[in-house]
Amino acid sequence: MTLARILTSEIGKYIGQQVRLLGWMHRLRAMGGVNFMVLRDRAGLAQAVLTKEEVSPLEGLLPETVIEVVGTVVSSEQAPGGVELNHCQITVISPVHEPTPFELNKRKVKASLPVFLDHAVVGQRAVERRAIMRLSSGTMAGFREVLRNKDFTEIQTPKLVGSATESGANVFPVEYFGRTAYLAQSPQFYKQIMVGVFERVFEVGPVFRAEPHSTTRHINQYVSLDVEFGFIKDHFDVMTLLTEVLRGILNHLQAHYQTELALLEVEMPAIPESIPWIYFPDAQQMLHDQFKVMDALGEPDLAPEHERILGEWAKKEYNSDFLFVTGYPMRKRPFYTHPNPDDPEHANGFDLLFRGLELVTGGQRLHRYEDYVAAAQRHKYSLEPFNEYFETFKFGMPPHGGFAIGLERFLTQLLQLDNIRHATLFPRDIHRLTP
Amino acid sequence: MTLARILTSEIGKYIGQQVRLLGWMHRLRAMGGVNFMVLRDRAGLAQAVLTKEEVSPLEGLLPETVIEVVGTVVSSEQAPGGVELNHCQITVISPVHEPTPFELNKRKVKASLPVFLDHAVVGQRAVERRAIMRLSSGTMAGFREVLRNKDFTEIQTPKLVGSATESGANVFPVEYFGRTAYLAQSPQFYKQIMVGVFERVFEVGPVFRAEPHSTTRHINQYVSLDVEFGFIKDHFDVMTLLTEVLRGILNHLQAHYQTELALLEVEMPAIPESIPWIYFPDAQQMLHDQFKVMDALGEPDLAPEHERILGEWAKKEYNSDFLFVTGYPMRKRPFYTHPNPDDPEHANGFDLLFRGLELVTGGQRLHRYEDYVAAAQRHKYSLEPFNEYFETFKFGMPPHGGFAIGLERFLTQLLQLDNIRHATLFPRDIHRLTP
Repeated sequence: MTLARILTSEIGKYIGQQVRLLGWMHRLRAMGGVNFMVLRDRAGLAQAVLTKEEVSPLEGLLPETVIEVVGTVVSSEQAPGGVELNHCQITVISPVHEPTPFELNKRKVKASLPVFLDHAVVGQRAVERRAIMRLSSGTMAGFREVLRNKDFTEIQTPKLVGSATESGANVFPVEYFGRTAYLAQSPQFYKQIMVGVFERVFEVGPVFRAEPHSTTRHINQYVSLDVEFGFIKDHFDVMTLLTEVLRGILNHLQAHYQTELALLEVEMPAIPESIPWIYFPDAQQMLHDQFKVMDALGEPDLAPEHERILGEWAKKEYNSDFLFVTGYPMRKRPFYTHPNPDDPEHANGFDLLFRGLELVTGGQRLHRYEDYVAAAQRHKYSLEPFNEYFETFKFGMPPHGGFAIGLERFLTQLLQLDNIRHATLFPRDIHRLTP
Repeated sequence: MTLARILTSEIGKYIGQQVRLLGWMHRLRAMGGVNFMVLRDRAGLAQAVLTKEEVSPLEGLLPETVIEVVGTVVSSEQAPGGVELNHCQITVISPVHEPTPFELNKRKVKASLPVFLDHAVVGQRAVERRAIMRLSSGTMAGFREVLRNKDFTEIQTPKLVGSATESGANVFPVEYFGRTAYLAQSPQFYKQIMVGVFERVFEVGPVFRAEPHSTTRHINQYVSLDVEFGFIKDHFDVMTLLTEVLRGILNHLQAHYQTELALLEVEMPAIPESIPWIYFPDAQQMLHDQFKVMDALGEPDLAPEHERILGEWAKKEYNSDFLFVTGYPMRKRPFYTHPNPDDPEHANGFDLLFRGLELVTGGQRLHRYEDYVAAAQRHKYSLEPFNEYFETFKFGMPPHGGFAIGLERFLTQLLQLDNIRHATLFPRDIHRLTP
């Protein structure tokens, strides 16, 4: 009878017993007569100490060779984790004869970003890289967990749309049975439509932005964590939900991804019971008066430097890594934005700054048909491409709002990565369509 | 102080008390001096009995008007669910002045399919339609639940790819910064690559097929529930996992979606402890000998009629709505398919029939680099577009396999819908890109 496979993370429970491991030869070091081999599986690493005879099946083989190891677990003070395998029998499952494009068994991958990305199919195996993408998986799970517990329904919406409605620019055209379709830039219209059906909806899915520039903060396909819900009073209800979602994600990661958080030395952000907020005109005034930013007043948006200052201010003043800025000028916001009824030049919306960088945009949307028609006309949009979307509002929509979190941007800022490409498996940008 | 909102599903707990409901006016019937109004919210329906004065805010307004109702819950034998609201005060939140394109408050929507789809933004509000899409949400949740409990990692892979690798035909070209990209037909290559990283992965996401025909069983964007995992013995390990996934989904729906299953009168399928399987050549022989299908032998695939007969046979013989057919001829399977080592003309793979229709395809994949090169050459593929994918196999891959379930197809067959378009919110087909 074959021994059942166990994982590297479990060997501490089997001291004195024979176990069977499966995985990749992560590292092999010959130290005279003794050989130290580290096996990697999905759970982590385990060390085996091999005699000359025991190591012989690995002769001529290189790291990443897939193997089976049957051995006895022994305590060892020098071993990582305090346990290692002795008396091993190794069986090669898939041999590797060629060195990987860069070393995968160091603390940090040494390859330049382009080289890494060219070979990401193996590069992602590096322990540190893998931890990032595990946290990506956990972020999605935490996001959904919070929302399902609040009776939100998950939706899947079309990624191929008939017209480049929302912004016109920055869309990818698709050849669709003899006509032109476009890749959806966001599920905005669909998630609003679905508030009419389920009241509360979320979607986790790809969005596509044909932005023709290359920066460390942009990729052209990313994963959007979208939320929309009805029967709100105003954008403060949306901010409350967003706060709960973020707290839920962080709690989920702490509960289930301790190994990854420790490996990456993640500093978990401070998130107070209620995230502080500041009204956009007040933020500008404060930047001007208190921080002597002389060009802050009158602009329709905050510059990155302004966001940085506000982030530091929130940290100092409220011990919060997060800060809401509400009431951006309407003229910079999309046409479906609901104005502040008491100050119609400013929006019932917000940006959420995380460590001084914009992470989320959200707010209340218009919900009356007449308001949509008026807003479209004000923006000089032709009404025809909006007909089907606007039909929703003809037939009774409650006050509603929502937000979208960019998954990769969230990870980049949580893990303080220097390039958003590190937070995605196989990034797409203006220069890159492979692997 | 305002009363907290409760849901229609909760009113039975508040008999004798005043409650506050929010939702849509689903139906309004004047019966002489009494008026029966049904309110719809995300949880269901509730009836309010209104005097002439109480109904007056609704004068001239049509179904789908968004309202607030404050009233007292009373037991009533005639009321649906045995409770209704009396002494109501109604506040209109969003008035509706135009009749919906078809009635949403009947047991079944009466619109033709094209009319329904043209107005799906409101049509999806119909109680029966909504139940289908709730089950869609639940299917995704059940799928993920099973896999996360088995230590699978969720991935998100590129939907824009550099070459039309897998089949060449039936891909949508995208204009990508001056060159041509393609919409991914499946995450097949990426999920295999990720077995090298996480051993066990899944993805829920859109796939795109440019099949230029219009049938009741095809849409051009659908949601694929993809699974891939390593360290398998052969395709039987994949079949075992698929069985657990299907059972997990069905259990999840039964645990959390009783209302929807009852409303749609869903007959839950019989799924035995172990789903029966039959080897493809044996299935053909049986069709020929036992069912007198004279053209069954020697064909490389099963015709729909053959699948139907086999489905009935499995139901009768094993009381199973599911049947695996294993060992399809290699010549009809994709190039990454692993052959049966004892019968290399047939695959270590399977189709799963559900009620006599193909639901899932899966199997073991090749895992050695040399086998990929040989398979590509045998298929007369140029190697160049596969370089990055094949790199995975150069650097150590375990025996692995997986499967993909089409979400909409699963729902269509579970709910016995007559058109797959009923199992998606806003279908995309050769004629339809909106709404």
